[in-house]
Amino acid sequence: EYESLIEDLHPADILDVIRQFKDDRVDILNRLPAWMIAYILDEADDKEKYELLSVLPRPRKKEIIGEMSSDELTDMVGSITPEEAKEIFTNMDSEDADELKELLTYNPETAGGIMAKEFLSVTENMTVEETLEYLRKEAPGAETTYYIYVLDENQRLKGVLSLRNLVISDLKARVSDIMHERVISVPVTMDQEEVGHLFEKYGFLTMPVVDDKDKMLGIITFDDVMNILREETTEDIYRLGGVQEGEKITGTVTESVKRRLPWLFINLLTAILASSTVSLFEGTIARVVTLATFMPIVAGMGGNTGTQTLTIIVRGLALGELTFENAKKVLLKEIGVGVSTGISIGVTVALLGFFWAGKPVFGLVIGLSMLLNMTAATLAGFLVPLILKKLHVDPALASAVFVTTVTDVLGFFFFLGLATVFISYLT
Amino acid sequence: EYESLIEDLHPADILDVIRQFKDDRVDILNRLPAWMIAYILDEADDKEKYELLSVLPRPRKKEIIGEMSSDELTDMVGSITPEEAKEIFTNMDSEDADELKELLTYNPETAGGIMAKEFLSVTENMTVEETLEYLRKEAPGAETTYYIYVLDENQRLKGVLSLRNLVISDLKARVSDIMHERVISVPVTMDQEEVGHLFEKYGFLTMPVVDDKDKMLGIITFDDVMNILREETTEDIYRLGGVQEGEKITGTVTESVKRRLPWLFINLLTAILASSTVSLFEGTIARVVTLATFMPIVAGMGGNTGTQTLTIIVRGLALGELTFENAKKVLLKEIGVGVSTGISIGVTVALLGFFWAGKPVFGLVIGLSMLLNMTAATLAGFLVPLILKKLHVDPALASAVFVTTVTDVLGFFFFLGLATVFISYLT
Ligand SMILES: [Mg+2]
Ligand SMILES: [Mg+2]
Ligand SMILES: [Mg+2]
Ligand SMILES: [Mg+2]
Ligand SMILES: [Mg+2]
Ligand SMILES: [Mg+2]
Ligand SMILES: [Mg+2]
Ligand SMILES: [Mg+2]
Ligand SMILES: [Mg+2]
Ligand SMILES: [Mg+2]
Ligand SMILES: [Mg+2]
Ligand SMILES: [Mg+2]
Ligand SMILES: [Mg+2]
Repeated sequence: EYESLIEDLHPADILDVIRQFKDDRVDILNRLPAWMIAYILDEADDKEKYELLSVLPRPRKKEIIGEMSSDELTDMVGSITPEEAKEIFTNMDSEDADELKELLTYNPETAGGIMAKEFLSVTENMTVEETLEYLRKEAPGAETTYYIYVLDENQRLKGVLSLRNLVISDLKARVSDIMHERVISVPVTMDQEEVGHLFEKYGFLTMPVVDDKDKMLGIITFDDVMNILREETTEDIYRLGGVQEGEKITGTVTESVKRRLPWLFINLLTAILASSTVSLFEGTIARVVTLATFMPIVAGMGGNTGTQTLTIIVRGLALGELTFENAKKVLLKEIGVGVSTGISIGVTVALLGFFWAGKPVFGLVIGLSMLLNMTAATLAGFLVPLILKKLHVDPALASAVFVTTVTDVLGFFFFLGLATVFISYLT
Repeated sequence: EYESLIEDLHPADILDVIRQFKDDRVDILNRLPAWMIAYILDEADDKEKYELLSVLPRPRKKEIIGEMSSDELTDMVGSITPEEAKEIFTNMDSEDADELKELLTYNPETAGGIMAKEFLSVTENMTVEETLEYLRKEAPGAETTYYIYVLDENQRLKGVLSLRNLVISDLKARVSDIMHERVISVPVTMDQEEVGHLFEKYGFLTMPVVDDKDKMLGIITFDDVMNILREETTEDIYRLGGVQEGEKITGTVTESVKRRLPWLFINLLTAILASSTVSLFEGTIARVVTLATFMPIVAGMGGNTGTQTLTIIVRGLALGELTFENAKKVLLKEIGVGVSTGISIGVTVALLGFFWAGKPVFGLVIGLSMLLNMTAATLAGFLVPLILKKLHVDPALASAVFVTTVTDVLGFFFFLGLATVFISYLT
């Protein structure tokens, strides 16, 4: 029943069919040519690539590995055991094996770790006609044919030609006449998220990766970058929400519990800290029980204010819009926001407290605590992610727990502390 | 001093220079050709496009508008007043004006609202040679030359040719022989976020947009899609954090306060609801003040558990990984996670409560409340975003406030309610 489904489909759709008809996957794969399977593996998750490959007989495996692009092969080999990797290497010709070994030396989350080796390059003194001929021969193996890079004898990047450019140029023209010389390239050590922002900014199809001597090492293509940006933002959203990266929405209870419990226990420590602060003032609460009633407002509003600032700051850092240069301006703004919203909410809650408790000083105490806590919240929401960034910890990862600790502990301390000072006006 | 800076730069970089040397922007723009300014406007924000255009004299304006691509023109005109738009229309030839009018009829956040009209199309019976000739003539005005679409006499989409394909084919071959017939197209009404996921899945450079009769209306290019996905995820991250979309990290205090206060007031209502729940039990708290001490643990852990589930669900909905089909499986998993983590944390907190208060029943009360509240939290974290989605409200927008309301109110109700029931064992 899957046969009519896979005819003439996009590899990504065939992969969907293979996932759906799991029992028939060997059958399905057996009736597809090796180059098509290589495309399908391109679309699969890192571990899934190896899983699918390993169900096939050895000669097919070898053929498919020969067709796979070096960046995808790197992802696959990076996700399996050394023994499994060794078997992959025995199925490769020595040139491909050398490329793969090189690619495996780079940090997988940097430009080097995501680039492919299959790019097209020519020299300056070739003609358009010669370049087109070279293109016709080499196109099938390349990651992209839309840009052709111009290299000197030391593989240094001199320029770039677009296929569009080639097609509309005179056949006798020299590469050096029609190439674009000011090529924007990516240093091999650049973090993949930053690479993503370069693609977003410039809208290039592919970007060349160079070493510190401008020697071209590989290319990065936009389709891989789109997937990387998707992963990076999911990671940030997850981390902000206290979920570990890699949790699958359709995973098992055990997997999810294993990934979520550590975060909950860390937060329990925070909550215990907040509770300890409250316990210092049990005597005061015993005398004015309405204080307990207002505790959720103090903690809740502090948390919300801190989260707002934190969100803006973490996203600003991720998008490169917040830098250590404009940080001071943003800090002043956030303090301003904390004071302003603190006054608005503080006055409202002060009135509420006054009417609820029937005592003006109660209103004053809760209102002032709101102002102090909300200002502290914006301050913490600003400082915590920047300090983490300075310490090379992902700001999205741990900021939330630190910020709520600050707002809970300080909030209760301000509120119950002030109440203790003014206790004689509250009873 | 900017002159040496802009020579041979990418339009996105020239835009950076223009932003940096704001006082010289008229000077800078005056020394650039109209087509280059059109490229620069492509990179600018919607409102910035008009701002830059409006500093130029009328004849230049007209020339630049003529060079701008229809999708960017649509963004610009969609962001200005009707009077300003009228002036733009007077500077356009009638064909361009008709295209623009058509594009303005689509919802700006759908395929129709983001597509461009400048695509290349040929008919089936043309030869490769004829197509290449057509390409040489038309390339300068097109959004992309890498795909050429094959249309019938009613503009219906019959196939697609890649430039790569053309270049490596025999010049005498017919388009019908080398075209790919199974074209994946985008319906004109599709939401832009879904369009983004199609690009992520298939890795296409451009995708054709069609109406319900398969008539081709325009193309969407990957560079615009990358920016859309960036905006959509920023929007989700902001909404989850209670920040309004469009807040600029380097904006003014007044702007930020205006955008954040409404959310804080909505959350204040939530907090008041939680406080009201506590107030019902003031009598109990007056007798066992340690209950107040444990309140932050109940509220905090419920909130964290709910946020974890919420994060997974909201992201799953945004990425299309959670559907109404697999929802039941995910619901059961989340309940399982709630019960399991609830037992782990519940037992820990029960022991803590027992030692702190010196009463076994106190431990029982707090432990049981944790279990109940954390299970309710995963349930709420799952249900709230799905209900909002069914009601066509963005799940990222309002989920957090509903989930914390549930966890605060239920948490205090379970904890203080159980304490009231077992009050004789607690004093
Ligand atoms: Mg190879
Ligand atoms: Mg990789
Ligand atoms: Mg990263
Ligand atoms: Mg762009
Ligand atoms: Mg690739
Ligand atoms: Mg990572
Ligand atoms: Mg990151
Ligand atoms: Mg648009
Ligand atoms: Mg949207
Ligand atoms: Mg792909
Ligand atoms: Mg565009
Ligand atoms: Mg929007
Ligand atoms: Mg959205």
